[in-house]
Amino acid sequence: MSQKTEAPLENDNLRDDETLTRSVDAAAELTTPEAIEDFALGDDYALNPEYISLVIDAADRGDGMRLRELLDALHPADIADLLGFLSEDYREEVIPWIPADHIAEILTELDEDIREEVVETLHPQDLAEVLQELDSDDAAAVFEDLEEDQRLAVLAVMPEAERAAIGASMAYEEETAGRLMQREVMAAPSFWSVGQTIDRMREGGDDLPELFFDIYVLDPSHKPLGAVPVSVLMRARREMALTQLMDPVTEIRVDQDQEEVAYIFEKYHLISAPVVDSSGRLVGQVTVDDIVNIIQEESQEDMLALAGVSDSGRDASIFGVVKSRFWWLLINLGTAVLASSVIGLFQDAIAKLVALAVLNPICASMGGNAGTQTLTVAVRALATRELNAANLLRTVWREIAAGVLNGLAFALVMGVVTMLWFHDPKMALVIGLAMVINLFAAAMAGILIPLGLDRLGYDPAASATVFVTTVTDCVGFFSFLGLAVIILL
Amino acid sequence: MSQKTEAPLENDNLRDDETLTRSVDAAAELTTPEAIEDFALGDDYALNPEYISLVIDAADRGDGMRLRELLDALHPADIADLLGFLSEDYREEVIPWIPADHIAEILTELDEDIREEVVETLHPQDLAEVLQELDSDDAAAVFEDLEEDQRLAVLAVMPEAERAAIGASMAYEEETAGRLMQREVMAAPSFWSVGQTIDRMREGGDDLPELFFDIYVLDPSHKPLGAVPVSVLMRARREMALTQLMDPVTEIRVDQDQEEVAYIFEKYHLISAPVVDSSGRLVGQVTVDDIVNIIQEESQEDMLALAGVSDSGRDASIFGVVKSRFWWLLINLGTAVLASSVIGLFQDAIAKLVALAVLNPICASMGGNAGTQTLTVAVRALATRELNAANLLRTVWREIAAGVLNGLAFALVMGVVTMLWFHDPKMALVIGLAMVINLFAAAMAGILIPLGLDRLGYDPAASATVFVTTVTDCVGFFSFLGLAVIILL
Repeated sequence: MSQKTEAPLENDNLRDDETLTRSVDAAAELTTPEAIEDFALGDDYALNPEYISLVIDAADRGDGMRLRELLDALHPADIADLLGFLSEDYREEVIPWIPADHIAEILTELDEDIREEVVETLHPQDLAEVLQELDSDDAAAVFEDLEEDQRLAVLAVMPEAERAAIGASMAYEEETAGRLMQREVMAAPSFWSVGQTIDRMREGGDDLPELFFDIYVLDPSHKPLGAVPVSVLMRARREMALTQLMDPVTEIRVDQDQEEVAYIFEKYHLISAPVVDSSGRLVGQVTVDDIVNIIQEESQEDMLALAGVSDSGRDASIFGVVKSRFWWLLINLGTAVLASSVIGLFQDAIAKLVALAVLNPICASMGGNAGTQTLTVAVRALATRELNAANLLRTVWREIAAGVLNGLAFALVMGVVTMLWFHDPKMALVIGLAMVINLFAAAMAGILIPLGLDRLGYDPAASATVFVTTVTDCVGFFSFLGLAVIILL
Repeated sequence: MSQKTEAPLENDNLRDDETLTRSVDAAAELTTPEAIEDFALGDDYALNPEYISLVIDAADRGDGMRLRELLDALHPADIADLLGFLSEDYREEVIPWIPADHIAEILTELDEDIREEVVETLHPQDLAEVLQELDSDDAAAVFEDLEEDQRLAVLAVMPEAERAAIGASMAYEEETAGRLMQREVMAAPSFWSVGQTIDRMREGGDDLPELFFDIYVLDPSHKPLGAVPVSVLMRARREMALTQLMDPVTEIRVDQDQEEVAYIFEKYHLISAPVVDSSGRLVGQVTVDDIVNIIQEESQEDMLALAGVSDSGRDASIFGVVKSRFWWLLINLGTAVLASSVIGLFQDAIAKLVALAVLNPICASMGGNAGTQTLTVAVRALATRELNAANLLRTVWREIAAGVLNGLAFALVMGVVTMLWFHDPKMALVIGLAMVINLFAAAMAGILIPLGLDRLGYDPAASATVFVTTVTDCVGFFSFLGLAVIILL
């Protein structure tokens, strides 16, 4: 620690920034937890860069007491956020000062890499206790990212019941409802009254969830018949039967993909839903707070996949970033060479008329943009299940018609531009015709390729872009240069 | 109706499909609501195309009783989904058969265009009743999309209190917490006990929400001090004070942007949050079910904006689609012409060495892809607030270093390809150098342009792509052709 005080870590972020001066002035007043929290979070509840620089200053000075004070004032989610903003060296300084009673919740919020750094500072005994504090879904999520030796060490010191619970969660496939669900549920047999149910809830017990929103009503074979929201139960007369109050439930199968679960929650505006096994018996519940993250992850995955990049996170190393981009670029290099070889077929034509080389990229570029537009809309519609056999032909027809109409419009615009630029009506005709052909090809590729990939069971977001731009590049070059040979030469 | 039986509407979707035969076979057995619902929804709860074709058949036959039966079995969210799959002609047939007790909920689920079609079939009196059934946030959402004359007609027949409530909602800006919130909340003064609170809730009243998850504890000036989850209240002893049970709350300001509200809900895993006015007094609450939609919308907006397209919805007309694509393509045509004019500078060089025209698009294309990768990651990081002043320099440096490293890798790959293709070491050198330069430019543009736009208050998703690809096209063409002039000619 003392070395740090003499040789501060290089802070490459805020040193030059005027904000630093301001933050140091303000820092003097930050003595109460409330003042620190107010300073740490902007009006929009995002973490304030000036607060982060206070943490970095304290770490540079090796001032552990100040670090503890700064961290203590924050919500666990904000501490997790803070760690994401720090470089690895600073995280090493800060992690030991995280308040122990927040470790459990912080672990569930962290990205995998950073979580590992925190876990490494914990004794297996402490880690086992942390896991027991969590709901079963969160405990399984933390556990599944542990190294094999960490897992064994933790299991060794865990009570039998907890060990069995984690084992049961891990038995389900990743990204299924089984992993997502918590086993703690509030359920009641169908013959119970409101009063009996409330009395049972008051007696409590460890198997009851800390927070819950619905009481599931079960038949004698443990199959859910319906659910009563807590707020309804609370306001009902004690002698009423649960079956009089219950609403129908939307059951989730334990092996259902998490993306499907998210779709169901979103569609029916669910707060919680019972999870059932293959024989229809209740085995757990999924709650909406776990779904919110999945909805955002799935949407963002599509966006990143369309650009051909896996997000390596804000904590990624340079090499990690290079790796996350390389393969997509390599595939695209292949398609770029392929497209260039199309131009190679027309070298004689270009030698005769150099203007062809100048105008050649325009149709391909327009096709690429139009194809990407259509593709993005198609990927979104598939992801939200707004596109299926019932509106397939209508959608394909509309996209292609729209492509042709835009092709005609841009044939006109580009024809006029070419006339003004090269004063050559034949050249204007060539580029106009090529534009219509390529925007037609772009629409076809942009809608049919994602549909085809989806039908074949591939993720259209992850692979369609490269196919679509290959089509629009090759058709763009070939139609423009080919028409030039026919009409101009 | 009888005309429809003789002259069925053209069904352009499923006629040729094998699924139709199967669905007709299965249809014979579909007599109970349970059987219809099972058939209508797949295992994944998405609407079954075969069910949609049953609806279309019934509409073709003008069989209103069957339509009623088919619709009655569905959840309102699924009826709304069904309308989205039907063409306008079929919607006109189906809408009159929607069960009246579902109209309110269906209206809140529909896209604006289709909602208007449904609203037009309702008398102002019925519409007013429908709005009164809804929570205040949903009522305001439906009301805000009404035409001016519809609004007046509805307000005229609405009770004073409801009229005031809608007026109050509409007074807030669109896409703010004020519009999003429901005014019905469960709140209690801080001096109440658990027992008093439960008794008050049981007495009920119209101003209480139907469902709620938290009871807000208020100070004498109506400012929220904390919240008690219903499930905790229910299990506590009657004599306990609310203040002993309450957790801190995360307050939402009434003028806060809905995207910020979504960020807060996601970060802190909230189920509900109190909304306060400028003096900190409780005016309503936002619940997570309203947030789920916003999270998905905001993520998808970014994805669509990056591709330069506004989603016109599955119900859009061809002309609507053309319009939603035209302006972006026009801007891109401008940049394509600009990039071509860069090539125009090098016409003499191309005339001497046609191979330049063949290889010219490769560096520009690689730059475009690499720039889009960097841009997409930056847009995502800005949207999720993972990128701010605290890690800005580190992130920019990492992106640029990664760009240069990938540039070196692809300089090597493309150098080898060029040697094999053109057997010209100088040409290989030219394309290799141009590759490094353009992937460097791509990284700079991909990270600095979205950051700059964000700093200036523009949405980086909505405008950055065109700037980035303009840079990579122009730098790609200029560096390759310029180096060729220096080294080869």
